[in-house]
Amino acid sequence: MFITFEGGEGSGKTTIINSLNNFLASLQHQVVLTREPGGTRIGEKIRDIILDAQNIDIDPYTESILFAASRAQHLKEVIIPALQAGKIVICDRFLDSSIAYQAYARHLGLDFVLKVNNLALQYQPDITFYIDLDPIIGLKRISTRDKLDRLDRAQLEFHQKVRAGYLTLAKDNPQRIIIIDGNQSKEQIARLVIAHIQGLF
Amino acid sequence: MFITFEGGEGSGKTTIINSLNNFLASLQHQVVLTREPGGTRIGEKIRDIILDAQNIDIDPYTESILFAASRAQHLKEVIIPALQAGKIVICDRFLDSSIAYQAYARHLGLDFVLKVNNLALQYQPDITFYIDLDPIIGLKRISTRDKLDRLDRAQLEFHQKVRAGYLTLAKDNPQRIIIIDGNQSKEQIARLVIAHIQGLF
Repeated sequence: MFITFEGGEGSGKTTIINSLNNFLASLQHQVVLTREPGGTRIGEKIRDIILDAQNIDIDPYTESILFAASRAQHLKEVIIPALQAGKIVICDRFLDSSIAYQAYARHLGLDFVLKVNNLALQYQPDITFYIDLDPIIGLKRISTRDKLDRLDRAQLEFHQKVRAGYLTLAKDNPQRIIIIDGNQSKEQIARLVIAHIQGLF
Repeated sequence: MFITFEGGEGSGKTTIINSLNNFLASLQHQVVLTREPGGTRIGEKIRDIILDAQNIDIDPYTESILFAASRAQHLKEVIIPALQAGKIVICDRFLDSSIAYQAYARHLGLDFVLKVNNLALQYQPDITFYIDLDPIIGLKRISTRDKLDRLDRAQLEFHQKVRAGYLTLAKDNPQRIIIIDGNQSKEQIARLVIAHIQGLF
């Protein structure tokens, strides 16, 4: 089973993913917990280029293609082998992030992003949890972090477009994408997610 | 005018490009000399990932997409602005390298490589010089170099496929790609290239 989590900055994905991981581990499931961009040695090098706050000269096209490069490596090295071995893969961000951030918010278009992510299209998640939150609240939550990366620093308007992109995606994929109200406590959200996964077993 | 040079390892592109650059500069042309992968600050970071001899775990898909990312940045930041300003751009490797190395030699297919390089397709070179050389000779030439990168270290069979890929490309693009016999001296090759460019003016 391939489970992905999506959401804007400050949506609390990490805590929720850890709760789900603990729950699945308690049931003796073999779980691979991973993230994008990154998830592999090569992918983390690519992640460094994408998120380095100094790289303000990175072109939106380049950024989009770098996400796809990191994803291809991640699929080949981690996700595909784990799924083939019958493990549960939980991934913090996947193709939907590229669609919300690059295709929609950066206006590169769905067609281009899908073309570059050709390989990922063949491995769509079984279920995706989108933690929906007003970016005003999300950005306020992360404002206390020591270090903000290049995407965290983008303008509010950009994050609003990302949210609109996610909502469009969820509308277009009602079977796969579950919208979760991110205004609830992380404990409440984790319970909802776990209930949903239990329902799938 | 957009001029590119292509060829396998050890084909002597660098020397020939410098000769052409000197010739064009002597005629007061504004020339931008650049290379791929790389050519920009971000692109050079991507180049480091691609060519680092330690990165043997890089997947062929990832490699191909990284070349495209470096190329997108290069087009936006260097090539397109220079062409728009009426300068002559001379580039050491461009899209044809991705076709010869990734589409053909790595068997990723022309369709995939063209999809990922969507932007580059809109900026095809006016003329491309392919320096053709038996890889046995080319690899022997570079064997004395202090440092061999990841692609230099690939097997002879891979370089033979690259050559076959270039020859297919040249056959498919007879108007644009000039095949030059790389067994001649670099001075002879430079004279041939300069004569050809003079013919275009």
